[in-house]
Amino acid sequence: MAKIADKYLVVDTWKVIEKGFDPSRNRVSESIFSLGNEYMGVRAYPEEGYSGDSLVGSYFNGLFEEGKVPAHYKGIIRFLRFMVSAVDWLYTRISVNGETLDLATSKFSDFTRELDFKRGKYVRSFVWELSDGKQIKLTFERFVSMNVSGLGCQRIVFEPLNFSGEVNVRAGLDFTIIHEDQGRNFWHTVQQGQADGITAILGETINTKNRLYSGFTTVVPNALQTKLVEADRFIGQDITIKLVQGEASTFDKFVNNYAEKDLSIANEHLWSKAHEQAKAYVGASYEELEQQQADYWDNVWKESDIVIEGDPDNQQGIRFCIFNLYQTYHGDNPGFNIGAKGLTGEAYRGLAFWDTESYCLPFYIFNNPKAAKSLLEFRYKSLPHALDRAKDLDCKGAFYPIATIDGTESCDLWQHSNLQLHVGTAVAYGIRHYVNITDDIDFLYEKGLEMLIQISRFYATRGQWGQQSGLYGYFGVMGPDEFQLMVNNNCYINLMAKKLFEYTLEVIDSMSLHSSEAFQALADRIDLTNEEQADWKHKAAFMKLPKDNETGIFEEHDGFFDMPHLDIHSIPVTEFPLYSHWSYDRLYRYDMIKQPDVLMFMFLYSDDYSLAEKIANYEYYESRCIHESSLSPSIHSILAAEIGKKEEAYQFFEFATRLDLDNYNRNTREGLHTTSIAAAWMNIVYGFGGMRSDGSHLILQPTIPTKWDSYSFPISYKESKVLVEVNQQGASIKVVSGDAVSIAIYGHTYNVTVEGIKVDLSQVVQQ
Amino acid sequence: MAKIADKYLVVDTWKVIEKGFDPSRNRVSESIFSLGNEYMGVRAYPEEGYSGDSLVGSYFNGLFEEGKVPAHYKGIIRFLRFMVSAVDWLYTRISVNGETLDLATSKFSDFTRELDFKRGKYVRSFVWELSDGKQIKLTFERFVSMNVSGLGCQRIVFEPLNFSGEVNVRAGLDFTIIHEDQGRNFWHTVQQGQADGITAILGETINTKNRLYSGFTTVVPNALQTKLVEADRFIGQDITIKLVQGEASTFDKFVNNYAEKDLSIANEHLWSKAHEQAKAYVGASYEELEQQQADYWDNVWKESDIVIEGDPDNQQGIRFCIFNLYQTYHGDNPGFNIGAKGLTGEAYRGLAFWDTESYCLPFYIFNNPKAAKSLLEFRYKSLPHALDRAKDLDCKGAFYPIATIDGTESCDLWQHSNLQLHVGTAVAYGIRHYVNITDDIDFLYEKGLEMLIQISRFYATRGQWGQQSGLYGYFGVMGPDEFQLMVNNNCYINLMAKKLFEYTLEVIDSMSLHSSEAFQALADRIDLTNEEQADWKHKAAFMKLPKDNETGIFEEHDGFFDMPHLDIHSIPVTEFPLYSHWSYDRLYRYDMIKQPDVLMFMFLYSDDYSLAEKIANYEYYESRCIHESSLSPSIHSILAAEIGKKEEAYQFFEFATRLDLDNYNRNTREGLHTTSIAAAWMNIVYGFGGMRSDGSHLILQPTIPTKWDSYSFPISYKESKVLVEVNQQGASIKVVSGDAVSIAIYGHTYNVTVEGIKVDLSQVVQQ
Repeated sequence: MAKIADKYLVVDTWKVIEKGFDPSRNRVSESIFSLGNEYMGVRAYPEEGYSGDSLVGSYFNGLFEEGKVPAHYKGIIRFLRFMVSAVDWLYTRISVNGETLDLATSKFSDFTRELDFKRGKYVRSFVWELSDGKQIKLTFERFVSMNVSGLGCQRIVFEPLNFSGEVNVRAGLDFTIIHEDQGRNFWHTVQQGQADGITAILGETINTKNRLYSGFTTVVPNALQTKLVEADRFIGQDITIKLVQGEASTFDKFVNNYAEKDLSIANEHLWSKAHEQAKAYVGASYEELEQQQADYWDNVWKESDIVIEGDPDNQQGIRFCIFNLYQTYHGDNPGFNIGAKGLTGEAYRGLAFWDTESYCLPFYIFNNPKAAKSLLEFRYKSLPHALDRAKDLDCKGAFYPIATIDGTESCDLWQHSNLQLHVGTAVAYGIRHYVNITDDIDFLYEKGLEMLIQISRFYATRGQWGQQSGLYGYFGVMGPDEFQLMVNNNCYINLMAKKLFEYTLEVIDSMSLHSSEAFQALADRIDLTNEEQADWKHKAAFMKLPKDNETGIFEEHDGFFDMPHLDIHSIPVTEFPLYSHWSYDRLYRYDMIKQPDVLMFMFLYSDDYSLAEKIANYEYYESRCIHESSLSPSIHSILAAEIGKKEEAYQFFEFATRLDLDNYNRNTREGLHTTSIAAAWMNIVYGFGGMRSDGSHLILQPTIPTKWDSYSFPISYKESKVLVEVNQQGASIKVVSGDAVSIAIYGHTYNVTVEGIKVDLSQVVQQ
Repeated sequence: MAKIADKYLVVDTWKVIEKGFDPSRNRVSESIFSLGNEYMGVRAYPEEGYSGDSLVGSYFNGLFEEGKVPAHYKGIIRFLRFMVSAVDWLYTRISVNGETLDLATSKFSDFTRELDFKRGKYVRSFVWELSDGKQIKLTFERFVSMNVSGLGCQRIVFEPLNFSGEVNVRAGLDFTIIHEDQGRNFWHTVQQGQADGITAILGETINTKNRLYSGFTTVVPNALQTKLVEADRFIGQDITIKLVQGEASTFDKFVNNYAEKDLSIANEHLWSKAHEQAKAYVGASYEELEQQQADYWDNVWKESDIVIEGDPDNQQGIRFCIFNLYQTYHGDNPGFNIGAKGLTGEAYRGLAFWDTESYCLPFYIFNNPKAAKSLLEFRYKSLPHALDRAKDLDCKGAFYPIATIDGTESCDLWQHSNLQLHVGTAVAYGIRHYVNITDDIDFLYEKGLEMLIQISRFYATRGQWGQQSGLYGYFGVMGPDEFQLMVNNNCYINLMAKKLFEYTLEVIDSMSLHSSEAFQALADRIDLTNEEQADWKHKAAFMKLPKDNETGIFEEHDGFFDMPHLDIHSIPVTEFPLYSHWSYDRLYRYDMIKQPDVLMFMFLYSDDYSLAEKIANYEYYESRCIHESSLSPSIHSILAAEIGKKEEAYQFFEFATRLDLDNYNRNTREGLHTTSIAAAWMNIVYGFGGMRSDGSHLILQPTIPTKWDSYSFPISYKESKVLVEVNQQGASIKVVSGDAVSIAIYGHTYNVTVEGIKVDLSQVVQQ
């Protein structure tokens, strides 16, 4: 794996710290120090204005613009939708004696910035030296409230070190922001003005008519003068603040943002509702709000902290991951999803992929089941779009988009959007996983089964019968391994479809038995027939699963074993990433794979495969995998741990927790790898913790990397909270709240209580 | 085959005639009545201005514009180049008493138009009735000179039927023409003015700086007054012409066009050179020039006419085809190629495909070897581009573009431009075919072998070894059958590559023996090594050719026999063309094929396959072919004729000659199917004539459709001219000029002389 860390930041187990300012790394830091609260996110751009390299990024979950795609053929998308760069609600300009602060041109020293996991805030400070020798220490704080969706808070502290005087601050709301990827601005203003202590503006996107209200109030004890400033798509205040040498003057700004995608709501109604919310912060106390934020995070760490002793790098790394998973999503807004870069940049256009169900969902299922459910609600809410999309593709049922912001397909590469079928089965797997761990049968019967049936209908019409094999499967597909572009009978897709059919039928059986009236109502509403159920059963039974029975190795797709061989270690490091250095078509002509495909389903349905099968397939596929997807190493780490390759497991893991902190892929400047961050959590819990959650019992088989003294992680399971603590001698597994639960630990099923189960690791023999 | 004729035009064996004007068919007729002389082409739009549905199309071979492609990945094209819609040199506006002629709004009667194959001109006439009852007969003639590249001639005859008076004619050169496909104009003016009786303008394209001079002179005996008119990108004359009741007043316009793509030539130089040419037509005689045009065509028909007795529809059809092949290309300009729509519309962007070598070249080889050679010169001239393109694709040697106007790749669908490899082998086949028929060894040694070596280098680096099969072949390709989008070991590609390697090595052997010094110079210049020759030999020997040995059926590609079956006759006619009615990805998931692929190589290397093999493969593949390419039916007709399916052969043939005249594909409005027109010629000569030209001897095995009384066709062969005449009783094959030639006729090889060979068809037993 040609992944090399770019060590730069200070290692601290509860913070990310940057000492000194490196303009060439500024965009990377802007991503890493991003803040978010699932409703909105903001990059750590210098809010005072910066003429150097910076991406001013302020995003609102699900707020999107669109452009027309010059479509060639039927079934290829017509509109490209993307998360639009929105209001710069932190907009600030600072000047002293007519000299304006700009870190690209101003003289400054003692620059430091911190992201505080415990308080959920971003703090930056430095001493600015003016051309006449005046020195002023500036401290910028900001946080995005985890308690109130639209609330963003900013504090600036001015401390003149060797003079007294005045500072002029322009503070405002700026809708003239450029969406960099598209090279243009997408906003016009509907309304703006000042009333009740609130300075506000209502913007609207040009094509989609998404609206965003932003209104702020300031608290500036030493203000000498305040003046309203209005300009094109901008409203703000010019504030003159008195400075006394050696004393701190504070500037606090409280912003209420309110996004509205419903076109039917009148501007006046929207304005007055948002305005009322904003008014609550007139004269607010920054300290009080900041403390509420700290309380929220305190609770997060109580619920979800993973403690690693003896490895501060990975301790920092995994906390950064958990911090960002909560920042990106925690389930207060059921209509939202998780973009590949969260709310931290324009890359991947803010779109959600199968990553949500395949990589992020387990974290939420085991930490925050409400959030897990809310993510599944996104798919239920967007079911009508998936039904439409299936029709576009001449199929029945529901075809979930490979990349989406609003439930419609937004991937403009037809080879991905039309050939990748694995979102639907990921959703189905997610439903099953969520329900099995939480016992939320209500969700399953009320919404889950309807999705399962519609997804099954798609898979029953998209597939075909092989003329020679007589078996069912999928032709013209791209599996999770995107280095095999258009193949037949991808083993992952076929296996997942088989499992989908079987599970759908199983849930139909159980619901028709246990909730027959509701079932009948559902069946009537969506015209479920016995014939189609028989059809699914038949197709599941005759699903083609290419495999070499002698070696036990599954064939990734028809003909994969004949693909020309390439020793992946012979590829010069300078040729990575291959997408940039190899001709596009060349990527697809080897037995080289981009990310786990066969290994992915062996992980997802771990219970179905023997250790020997896992070893055989791991040996074969790992040696052919270049991990060009950042999601890849963790799955390999988990399997390596299971088959006893401890060293290899740790090597793959090192990449996972610090992917962005150490800028492994050299593209963190574009935004965080938010969904890969979720894989880091899986890496510890499934990998070293040895958890498996796909069978009838939860399994835990903890091991520990030799480098670590100990580690622990909590999991929510069947309404109980279980704590797993592991050190080099042994593991302890106990219930910390709720009822006793049944868990299989190293081959024995225990009734785990508050007393807990202790395992002597030296006694445990690898299966 | 869901192809149905739309009979509309008058059947005449030497003309295309339309009686009456149908505005809804105007664009179709504009294509059909197009004129061209390989240097330029012009659609039959009403030059007097028409506010109805019309495509004002004036094109110059190889004159192109370009647009940037937002490329995602390496190896995908960055510039889309296309033949640009150029000056309207026929621009005319006509008014009488302030009333302006416009066929969309004016009252008129007795509309008729004709395209005359013998004189190579387009004539249109009607009677215009003004609002005050005045009637004037107008006759418009135009021709594009086959003798002088840039020369276009226009005549308008005015005959007032019931009044005397004046007509005002504005005649000019208009560069404001809109390129419809791109929705904009691509020209600005460099210079314009009047001198020496010439009114001229020099335009330049915006991005590519291609230049086009256009200068005209008029001869108007009854002119009362003439005035210069200049406007934005326009220059012209306003001429008032005296009209006398019952008398004809003529207006003649002679235009010299001169296109220049060489950026290094100064404007002044270009202007004065083109101006000198234009001056030659001041005071010219229309009648004289028109007679020279007729003489040219007289000679064409002497050389190339196919005479069919007893079938006026197909007689007209095949003459229309031959007429258009000459109009599109006849070899005076070696730097030109043949666009899929010739010079008759914007569709396919004026780009040339493998059609040139695979479908058009045989016509030229056997009718006009100079033109055949000139077409191959295009590939030699563009070899540097093909070398660059191979590098783009991480390969060596030359990769010829799937679609091009200037030698660079201009197909913006990566799946075609990167996966379709068959232009290179088509070029190689074309070289071999041309040389075998003409004995032009000089061309082979001077240019042909260099191309063969570079093409071989590409095929030796693009291919790979199958890991299981141990055989060589091509992975990730699209064969001629575009309904199998990305496959491995397409049998056509593999077979053609094998033949390419073998032929290249054969020519190397022969040239090193017979022209050793020149060979050594070539080998040194392009670093030909023994190792690579050994490599080609090895790869040719171990080329994978998937085949079922039991049935003798070649497998189109790995896994084709397992592709889900579809009874193509079950597809409702309303779903054609499938590209418009089926989801794009769905097209590629069946054993349904778009056009011949296995059958194509069985035709190209006819000599290599037994009749039994041809029958087995025809039965299998024809029943799976939907002929969505207009090139498809003729190849099937040729093979059907060979295997004795006479009725089927005739059914496929019916489509070929009248494809555009009867608007079979309902898209003739976009332009003629110029390259399919060439397939119609092949259909008669290879199909009914039974010619095969791929072996060591020319083969002729004539048959005749039962519906025909007789037919005859001439062919150029080894510097002799051979005439084949067939009627229901027998065939006669004789040399009409040149030396005796050796031809295999029905299994016997004859030395054919002016005496000729006669075959009694009733005696001939099908092999």
